[in-house]
Amino acid sequence: MPATIIDSLIFADMFTAADMRAVFSDERRVQYYLEIEAALARVQARLKIIPQQACDEIVSHCRVEQIDMAKLKGATERIGYPILGVVQQLVALCKDGLGEWCHWGATTQDITDTATVMQIRAGLELVERDLRETADILADLAKTYRATPMAARSNLQQAVPITFGFKCAVLLAAFHRHLERLQQLKPRALVGEFGGAAGNLSSLGEMGLKVQEGLMRELGLGQPAIAWHTTHDQIAEVGCFLGLVTGTLGKISTDVKMMMQTEVEEVFEPFAEGRGSSSTMPQKRNPIASAYIHALVSVVRQHVAALLDALVADHERSTGPWEIEWISLPEIFCLTSGALKQTRNMLAGLEVKPERMRQNLDVTGGLVVSEAVMMGLGPALGRQRAHDLVYDICREVIRTGRPFLDLLADNPEIKPHMGRDELAKLVDPANYLGLCGEMVDRVLADHRKLARAT
Amino acid sequence: MPATIIDSLIFADMFTAADMRAVFSDERRVQYYLEIEAALARVQARLKIIPQQACDEIVSHCRVEQIDMAKLKGATERIGYPILGVVQQLVALCKDGLGEWCHWGATTQDITDTATVMQIRAGLELVERDLRETADILADLAKTYRATPMAARSNLQQAVPITFGFKCAVLLAAFHRHLERLQQLKPRALVGEFGGAAGNLSSLGEMGLKVQEGLMRELGLGQPAIAWHTTHDQIAEVGCFLGLVTGTLGKISTDVKMMMQTEVEEVFEPFAEGRGSSSTMPQKRNPIASAYIHALVSVVRQHVAALLDALVADHERSTGPWEIEWISLPEIFCLTSGALKQTRNMLAGLEVKPERMRQNLDVTGGLVVSEAVMMGLGPALGRQRAHDLVYDICREVIRTGRPFLDLLADNPEIKPHMGRDELAKLVDPANYLGLCGEMVDRVLADHRKLARAT
Amino acid sequence: MPATIIDSLIFADMFTAADMRAVFSDERRVQYYLEIEAALARVQARLKIIPQQACDEIVSHCRVEQIDMAKLKGATERIGYPILGVVQQLVALCKDGLGEWCHWGATTQDITDTATVMQIRAGLELVERDLRETADILADLAKTYRATPMAARSNLQQAVPITFGFKCAVLLAAFHRHLERLQQLKPRALVGEFGGAAGNLSSLGEMGLKVQEGLMRELGLGQPAIAWHTTHDQIAEVGCFLGLVTGTLGKISTDVKMMMQTEVEEVFEPFAEGRGSSSTMPQKRNPIASAYIHALVSVVRQHVAALLDALVADHERSTGPWEIEWISLPEIFCLTSGALKQTRNMLAGLEVKPERMRQNLDVTGGLVVSEAVMMGLGPALGRQRAHDLVYDICREVIRTGRPFLDLLADNPEIKPHMGRDELAKLVDPANYLGLCGEMVDRVLADHRKLARAT
Amino acid sequence: MPATIIDSLIFADMFTAADMRAVFSDERRVQYYLEIEAALARVQARLKIIPQQACDEIVSHCRVEQIDMAKLKGATERIGYPILGVVQQLVALCKDGLGEWCHWGATTQDITDTATVMQIRAGLELVERDLRETADILADLAKTYRATPMAARSNLQQAVPITFGFKCAVLLAAFHRHLERLQQLKPRALVGEFGGAAGNLSSLGEMGLKVQEGLMRELGLGQPAIAWHTTHDQIAEVGCFLGLVTGTLGKISTDVKMMMQTEVEEVFEPFAEGRGSSSTMPQKRNPIASAYIHALVSVVRQHVAALLDALVADHERSTGPWEIEWISLPEIFCLTSGALKQTRNMLAGLEVKPERMRQNLDVTGGLVVSEAVMMGLGPALGRQRAHDLVYDICREVIRTGRPFLDLLADNPEIKPHMGRDELAKLVDPANYLGLCGEMVDRVLADHRKLARAT
Repeated sequence: MPATIIDSLIFADMFTAADMRAVFSDERRVQYYLEIEAALARVQARLKIIPQQACDEIVSHCRVEQIDMAKLKGATERIGYPILGVVQQLVALCKDGLGEWCHWGATTQDITDTATVMQIRAGLELVERDLRETADILADLAKTYRATPMAARSNLQQAVPITFGFKCAVLLAAFHRHLERLQQLKPRALVGEFGGAAGNLSSLGEMGLKVQEGLMRELGLGQPAIAWHTTHDQIAEVGCFLGLVTGTLGKISTDVKMMMQTEVEEVFEPFAEGRGSSSTMPQKRNPIASAYIHALVSVVRQHVAALLDALVADHERSTGPWEIEWISLPEIFCLTSGALKQTRNMLAGLEVKPERMRQNLDVTGGLVVSEAVMMGLGPALGRQRAHDLVYDICREVIRTGRPFLDLLADNPEIKPHMGRDELAKLVDPANYLGLCGEMVDRVLADHRKLARAT
Repeated sequence: MPATIIDSLIFADMFTAADMRAVFSDERRVQYYLEIEAALARVQARLKIIPQQACDEIVSHCRVEQIDMAKLKGATERIGYPILGVVQQLVALCKDGLGEWCHWGATTQDITDTATVMQIRAGLELVERDLRETADILADLAKTYRATPMAARSNLQQAVPITFGFKCAVLLAAFHRHLERLQQLKPRALVGEFGGAAGNLSSLGEMGLKVQEGLMRELGLGQPAIAWHTTHDQIAEVGCFLGLVTGTLGKISTDVKMMMQTEVEEVFEPFAEGRGSSSTMPQKRNPIASAYIHALVSVVRQHVAALLDALVADHERSTGPWEIEWISLPEIFCLTSGALKQTRNMLAGLEVKPERMRQNLDVTGGLVVSEAVMMGLGPALGRQRAHDLVYDICREVIRTGRPFLDLLADNPEIKPHMGRDELAKLVDPANYLGLCGEMVDRVLADHRKLARAT
Repeated sequence: MPATIIDSLIFADMFTAADMRAVFSDERRVQYYLEIEAALARVQARLKIIPQQACDEIVSHCRVEQIDMAKLKGATERIGYPILGVVQQLVALCKDGLGEWCHWGATTQDITDTATVMQIRAGLELVERDLRETADILADLAKTYRATPMAARSNLQQAVPITFGFKCAVLLAAFHRHLERLQQLKPRALVGEFGGAAGNLSSLGEMGLKVQEGLMRELGLGQPAIAWHTTHDQIAEVGCFLGLVTGTLGKISTDVKMMMQTEVEEVFEPFAEGRGSSSTMPQKRNPIASAYIHALVSVVRQHVAALLDALVADHERSTGPWEIEWISLPEIFCLTSGALKQTRNMLAGLEVKPERMRQNLDVTGGLVVSEAVMMGLGPALGRQRAHDLVYDICREVIRTGRPFLDLLADNPEIKPHMGRDELAKLVDPANYLGLCGEMVDRVLADHRKLARAT
Repeated sequence: MPATIIDSLIFADMFTAADMRAVFSDERRVQYYLEIEAALARVQARLKIIPQQACDEIVSHCRVEQIDMAKLKGATERIGYPILGVVQQLVALCKDGLGEWCHWGATTQDITDTATVMQIRAGLELVERDLRETADILADLAKTYRATPMAARSNLQQAVPITFGFKCAVLLAAFHRHLERLQQLKPRALVGEFGGAAGNLSSLGEMGLKVQEGLMRELGLGQPAIAWHTTHDQIAEVGCFLGLVTGTLGKISTDVKMMMQTEVEEVFEPFAEGRGSSSTMPQKRNPIASAYIHALVSVVRQHVAALLDALVADHERSTGPWEIEWISLPEIFCLTSGALKQTRNMLAGLEVKPERMRQNLDVTGGLVVSEAVMMGLGPALGRQRAHDLVYDICREVIRTGRPFLDLLADNPEIKPHMGRDELAKLVDPANYLGLCGEMVDRVLADHRKLARAT
């Protein structure tokens, strides 16, 4: 029975996504090994390095169903790496000793690294799908709530009014940056490895680079400028990217759970019977998805540091740093997939409470628009004086509990400049939304551009 | 199929130990839940809080085999936490509605945290066993090689001679500290949780503390001073402890792999046919265990930071920080178990090459004992002068390749004070082992004391 | 001008404490070097290893004021380590070449590590002082607010009532554990280093251990079992301890800033004119201390991982891992000192708002005591039925906004068992505080015991 | 006196670069604040938002020399943030109350974040300069040693021959990727912040976006799509980039220090009198730069995780996460600058020992080319048979110490296919360099392209 939350029979689908787990499953990894060996055979047959007959025979056995996983486990434990064990089984499966032509000129790490890149490609496709879907949801939210007033919070204090659509558009802009990053890193990350024992393709003679080029074309991967067995910065870069993406998810989950507080209740995670319920407190509506996301993001960021540690590799094939990647890369993808899934589902079904947002804006008795008042009075009183005066009046509101508007209207310094009606307009949050709408529109325009570009 | 290396069908037993995985398996976790529910029922029946009949019925069903794991998965996903799902199954298993008396006054986190503590107890037992076994092996090595000269390396430069036994005793002393830490943290860590929704046992009235006390006695755990639902420092402390332990293992693996270098070859990981072999370089003898240990240690230390992050919990029951523990705690134990297993096996079968150690001491043509010469000449020439003179001669040895002894014996400043014979003794590494033996003995004496104390 | 926030001319005193910075200043470090050299000279003179006259001369110059720091910088950059530069200046300061007797038999790392331990000792004293003071403040708060009702929050949802004193007592218990840890780690951490080039004291002959013992007695430090140049687990352990301590501080700051939210306002950081004010939003009262603490704690936990990385040291004197400590240890102490200072000051002047706590308990219209109702009805209706029924009624309260008590009193299933008066008692939060008081008392008793023990 | 190694009077220039420290000094930060305030005034005067006279007066005082730093410290401690304190001083410096027009419509974080971006711009310029210079050095090394044979090491075992130029070209390719990343991230990172209290520019009315656009043009920064006060992914991305860069530096330092080992001695860090010398072991030549780099890289990677943590920001202006950046961003830049400086200097003066590289290739008695032999015999014997046979012979070489060539030549299975002369050619490492030269050329071609592109 599994010991990790990622593979747990109970928790796996709460903390990760099944399709991402499949990408990093033993099965898929071995399948990629075999696809690479098959592609290598095809290329080498085409280049007359190995007999066509050997190629055909090898390719016909490059199916994961033919691999005895228990036997592979034994071989891997004996040797320390899985590739030789796969090759040995492949050789044994091939008739007439033709299998001996397989894995020609390759080294264990060539196959392993290239398979890792194929996992990364598949994993990033899922990440991109989730990023796009979530961005679309955020775009819808930004549009729908473009003009829905709520309190901006700064240092957890109500600051000035914004709109919920503006809040969503700020997040959406981060997704746009993530998608841009993804496009830029792909050509670096999706490059295969094929260099032989030390990367210089010594065992293949003159044909080495031709084989390398052909192999990468077969696999749809980029050809490396030179071996990168111990310069895995493009792998760590993928980890960094996932760290950045999940950082944004952590921000979203933070805001959602804060807005779900009993004392705030401006949004709710999607309701489902029993979801987030407590065994003893029936009134509770727990922000379950937000909690998971928080946890996932926390662990992802530490795996980023582990993947950076993996860069400190020794010589031409490292002694330990590489294996850090074996542990951390599948986890960082799986944990990210869980955070993405939870975020998307949470946002897709988010219950938004515009009335409650409006009510909360009144909690301060108008103080939330003190800036509006200060700015409004600025031209008349001078900025610093307006600031100081409004600051004092706010303090009095807090002390006495008297309405902000009353105190403003009664103030002898203000009276000559502004009447109660004008002041009443100043203290209406809906009149102080700044450029929320215009800014939402800017980000939505970017979003349409991005959607067309895909 | 599993996606993590920890649960991998191929790699699990290389990177972790099966008995530790079992401790953190879904099965064991649910079993602990049930043991706690059973203990709670027994205590509450004894205290007349629930009917004895209900207790008997509940206890009779507290076996993991009776739990439908797929159903539990569904309930957990719906609710967000597994306990209510277990309780619901338990209720359904009990006849006559007697199951309704189970979980009385408890909250989800009471059961979860206490089960975590039981996993920690079981996990630490395995860690302690491995620490003791490995310490015994190191003690044997220290004793066996108490007087076997080798080069100490400082900044990867041969410095002065030591003995291999001394090197092992230095490591052994670290194990003694780890075992001491373990004894000290156990009373803090092995404390159960039982406080109800907010920790104040409000649902149990006056009997609350009696139930808590009885429950902990049943489970063999300490009773908490007060609820610790959101003050998990004792859990993070366990993570820190494993970080410290694996740090030492990382040091050991570093030394072993450095000593296994082709150019050094002073020790070897145990030989096994095919072990560490390469598909293309038959001469290689890869430090496989060392490489794994390096990687495991790297990831463990990042999980320590994650567990520290889990401390930043909100209010009485946290929203995300707690779940960090769900991810990281099983992993940190499993990864540590792998590092411990690999280290123990590696050291148990370590091939030590005293002749090669001796040969390597000659690599510098005697310079490795330049300190001996410097100290030997100090009384006669003054410390600074001796230092400067020997330093210059060393530089000449390096430049000219002439033997150190010759240059020393020919030096007009030295000649008046020391003859060639005396100098020859000074440059014999075996004559400059300092207090290696005495120091080994001191640590071995500590070891015997510790063994007796157990 | 400094580049770090720790040494910043503007921010230093907000993010760190001046006394801790002094402990890790260049000046103090060099002063410790000199104290060790002086102690070594005294011991070696006593043991007749060096002339008394040399000792006297050396000791007379072991004052940091006599060291030319710019020259030391130059020497350190040239050599790579500062000790030789200090020794050279000391030699030059001594008349008649007597300085050549200084540093006899020591290695650079002996002095550096022992000075580090002296810094740790001084640093831990400050940490202990802050822990004790903060614990006393928490004890006062726990006592004062022992019976002050407030809402416990679970998953950021109001759960059941507790008291503010209980909340403080939970935190206080964590401080007790930290103080216990500190006492236990001190004998391990406060051990000096003196082993010579490779730790085996080869340059001192038979007298080595006597010198070591005498030196440690002079410095008030423990004598090591054996050299620990590359087994720094006791240093990393100190880092872990600070990680645990700051984790608790992070929890406190989280709760304070959450309770300071505009919509909650149950406590406030101490008021100071202008403190936490905004340039444009005069109504704000920012949780400044909490924000700093959050940030400090986040960085501290990462330095813990760095210090664990430092454990992976090579051979007898490491090539890089050691220097990690040079960077991270001063920072982890300084950042911790800032978090401790901010927490202590924040708690010492904390404004607690019992009326607002009471008001917030009413926010749910009584639902916060749904558990009380459920438990109260349990005996009559059966636990599961009571749970389900109350759960349904709660949902109706949320949907309709009707008072909880009304719906309960009107419910036909409840009516036969309980009248409106009895139900009214059940829904009064002040009647459902559980064992908050008793638990506070337990922790306060521990606190008195601890205070007496000091 | 400073407490951090970064600002240390002794260590600062070993662990960091002075120009980078200047970028993150208090002085420079305040200067950037003032430059932004001046630019804001100019733009707002141009747009007739503030009087031209006010602008002139404000701009004339926007010089860091006019700021009283001690007073600023006091204000910052009182308020919690430095901007208001700067503005207050600026207001006081301006005659006729004209200063009240400064900072119009801006919020504290607008100025702080934009100043941070200006620091990042200056910091990245230094990083880019160092990356380019180091890449040029690596290109020279790759060219010079394009055909210099040395042993490739895999798992610290000699594997097959490569050339030292190849080794350098592999590293150079990583620098090319880093430079590409840098170009891509700049347009994302070098974007200013100007949004007012909640990012929606509410205090500036219709003119908000025009002011924002003009301000960014003045400062040479990009205009944001929308406020990013709490979506700092582009800041964390810079941290990730530095983590990737330093990862490569860690790899380089690892290889250099391994090659400097007493038993290897293939390269040396540049010699300087006394550099890396030991107080007691005159023969040593410590890899000082490598050691520092190792430590710096270790801490940098943890700051990356801290910066990712900073992404988990609450609402519109965060309560703690932001301040993580204040601590970690200056450090990550300063530590990186030290690692870059040390690497560049180390490589610029690297002593390369081709003869010793050649000698080390003979250490295995020819086994290092066993792959060559295996591949050479493959066509005749079949790949698997050749592998097994050579593997056995290698084992015999190791066991008996007899020369590889002799055993090969004597082998009855080989004899029919290959004579001693042909075998002798096979076992000459210089004949088995694979495509090292071609691969070096490919990377150098990339390098020239990159140089031209700049």
